[in-house]
Amino acid sequence: MAFGWIDEQADARRRAGLVRTLRPRPADSPLLDLASNDYLGLARHPEVTGAAAAAARAWGGGSTGSRLVTGTTELHTELERELAEFCGFEAALVFSSGYAANLAAVTALAPHGTLVVSDAGNHASLIDGCRLARGSTQVVPHADPEAVRKALATHEGPAVLVSDTVFSVDGDAAPLGEFAAVCRERGAGLVVDDAHGLGVLGPGGRGAARAAGLAGAADVVVTVTLSKSLGSQGGAVLGPARVVDHLVNAARTFIFDTGLAPAAAGAALAALRLLRREPGRAARAREVAAELHARLTAAGLEAVRPDAAVVSVRAPSPEGAVRWAADCRAAGLAVGCFRPPSVPDGVSRLRLTARGDLSGDQIERAVRVIGETRP
Amino acid sequence: MAFGWIDEQADARRRAGLVRTLRPRPADSPLLDLASNDYLGLARHPEVTGAAAAAARAWGGGSTGSRLVTGTTELHTELERELAEFCGFEAALVFSSGYAANLAAVTALAPHGTLVVSDAGNHASLIDGCRLARGSTQVVPHADPEAVRKALATHEGPAVLVSDTVFSVDGDAAPLGEFAAVCRERGAGLVVDDAHGLGVLGPGGRGAARAAGLAGAADVVVTVTLSKSLGSQGGAVLGPARVVDHLVNAARTFIFDTGLAPAAAGAALAALRLLRREPGRAARAREVAAELHARLTAAGLEAVRPDAAVVSVRAPSPEGAVRWAADCRAAGLAVGCFRPPSVPDGVSRLRLTARGDLSGDQIERAVRVIGETRP
Repeated sequence: MAFGWIDEQADARRRAGLVRTLRPRPADSPLLDLASNDYLGLARHPEVTGAAAAAARAWGGGSTGSRLVTGTTELHTELERELAEFCGFEAALVFSSGYAANLAAVTALAPHGTLVVSDAGNHASLIDGCRLARGSTQVVPHADPEAVRKALATHEGPAVLVSDTVFSVDGDAAPLGEFAAVCRERGAGLVVDDAHGLGVLGPGGRGAARAAGLAGAADVVVTVTLSKSLGSQGGAVLGPARVVDHLVNAARTFIFDTGLAPAAAGAALAALRLLRREPGRAARAREVAAELHARLTAAGLEAVRPDAAVVSVRAPSPEGAVRWAADCRAAGLAVGCFRPPSVPDGVSRLRLTARGDLSGDQIERAVRVIGETRP
Repeated sequence: MAFGWIDEQADARRRAGLVRTLRPRPADSPLLDLASNDYLGLARHPEVTGAAAAAARAWGGGSTGSRLVTGTTELHTELERELAEFCGFEAALVFSSGYAANLAAVTALAPHGTLVVSDAGNHASLIDGCRLARGSTQVVPHADPEAVRKALATHEGPAVLVSDTVFSVDGDAAPLGEFAAVCRERGAGLVVDDAHGLGVLGPGGRGAARAAGLAGAADVVVTVTLSKSLGSQGGAVLGPARVVDHLVNAARTFIFDTGLAPAAAGAALAALRLLRREPGRAARAREVAAELHARLTAAGLEAVRPDAAVVSVRAPSPEGAVRWAADCRAAGLAVGCFRPPSVPDGVSRLRLTARGDLSGDQIERAVRVIGETRP
């Protein structure tokens, strides 16, 4: 029977305790949220939701077509201009998701004959980009500039290094400065996903590339999401204008996808303007992360020191992680629970996001609940 | 220099007359729109835009996380339930784009050892799904059930046939009934993209699978977009509950992508309810397409008989197509212009969408402009 093998896989998942189930949330959840990627607490900010609503009314429920046909509005262009300027790049191109932006950047910048060097900890969307690209990919150990150097030395033609700036699972940062240096030794391009850096790292949240002095460089391309610090949906590629023009002409997830909905473009633009006006929001998210980490460690928990706003806490097993997260939830706290196959190293953990709008009391409560429910 | 090869490619594109440029549109364009995929004219409907605005205010500017963490709201679940019910399927799963839905369906349903038979006219997102899938792909000539039968006969293990229901470029329909029959002979699954069928084909716009008597079958999976007839953004996979559960557990573009923005979910749900209340909208889009085709043909133009709401008109060359579309625009008419590499056969054409809300006068004006500007 067609799709008969699905039942066997489902049984195996059940036996391994790895079944995933959707848990729809209400509009006004009573839970304290340390699970979302709403790092700056802007998704529910009235300026952001108001801008989404106004954009939907002014521009429509959707963009009505692909970006090259009817799907580019003046609102998209405005967002692209301000996003590029804010992050310090020549140009930006907005996509319907960060996933689509990563597929676009990697595939369009790694044609046949290109070597793609890919960090072992990269996000699924970068990995899928490598798999779709016509170039050949070499995976190198996580956060290892020397391994990148060696990989680049094996190849004569064009090459790119692809990496997250902040890794989603453990919240650790890539050694961007060293990555850029080894790329430049070999004339390779650097393509980094700043999904978890934008709004958190760099001056006023201008991102990891800006923090590393790489923003606007001719050999650096950055992808971002609009769905985390900016509280909306979508993604973008930032880089030299010639790279962005190339993506317009060559990136399949740009050419063959419907443009981002106006409400999402409007929400992201409002969040960006809010962040520019209130640059302290970025530093506050980092402070909350540092405080969370310090308190968790003081409570005897094994937490990774955060480089941005993600704090990862080790769990004893996939089942243990699931039970721990469920117990937190029962005690009024929403935390992320990462387990195989979403974790590259097979280690399950709780994943906490240090939203910049958490109060001291909320941080204290979160740490208490996590400590009391530890398996 | 990094990315140095981009300039050579840009030069080659310029010499071939194939440079693509974004043309941002204002909120209230004076052009008559026959270019968008807003088949039912719902993107600007006040019920749809009002629902988008209300959802943004109630639920936030974004969904704040991946669907398995915080990105599933009760609004997503409501949309999934009503979409499945409307189209006659057991279950539905909503994605941030139709592109993501197609990548998910093909990759998750074609693991290692699976044969994927892929129609030569398929959309880029299905092709990328085939390329990402661990199964092996065999491309068969366009709309050719006998070729599918032969391809399926070469393989012993699990197999799926992947096809659009309505092909975007020429607007022709796949022979769905025959495709299903040859799949069933071999126990193969059928995965079809109904992006251009939902809202246009079948009773009350319930789609091509419903029209072919295939909705709800255990061996049929349908993907749709929320960004065409439903005037919003996003995509969905419709199928048996066990297939949808499998996608929740295995599809990377579901697990590792931020959930669809609430405004887009709200807009799509409102459009779906509107369509259920006013089923004549679907038939009207088909009537407009038939009338457009008849009048264009009567004017001596080479147009493909439409199976849904897309009418394709042959152009003499890529440059001719671009000039034709530009002359239409100068005369107040927006039409799509497809040329390499967006057309699989290398033939450039104007692409007209027969929006169901076009008046007789508007159809007449469109045909007059297209005839007067022909190269």
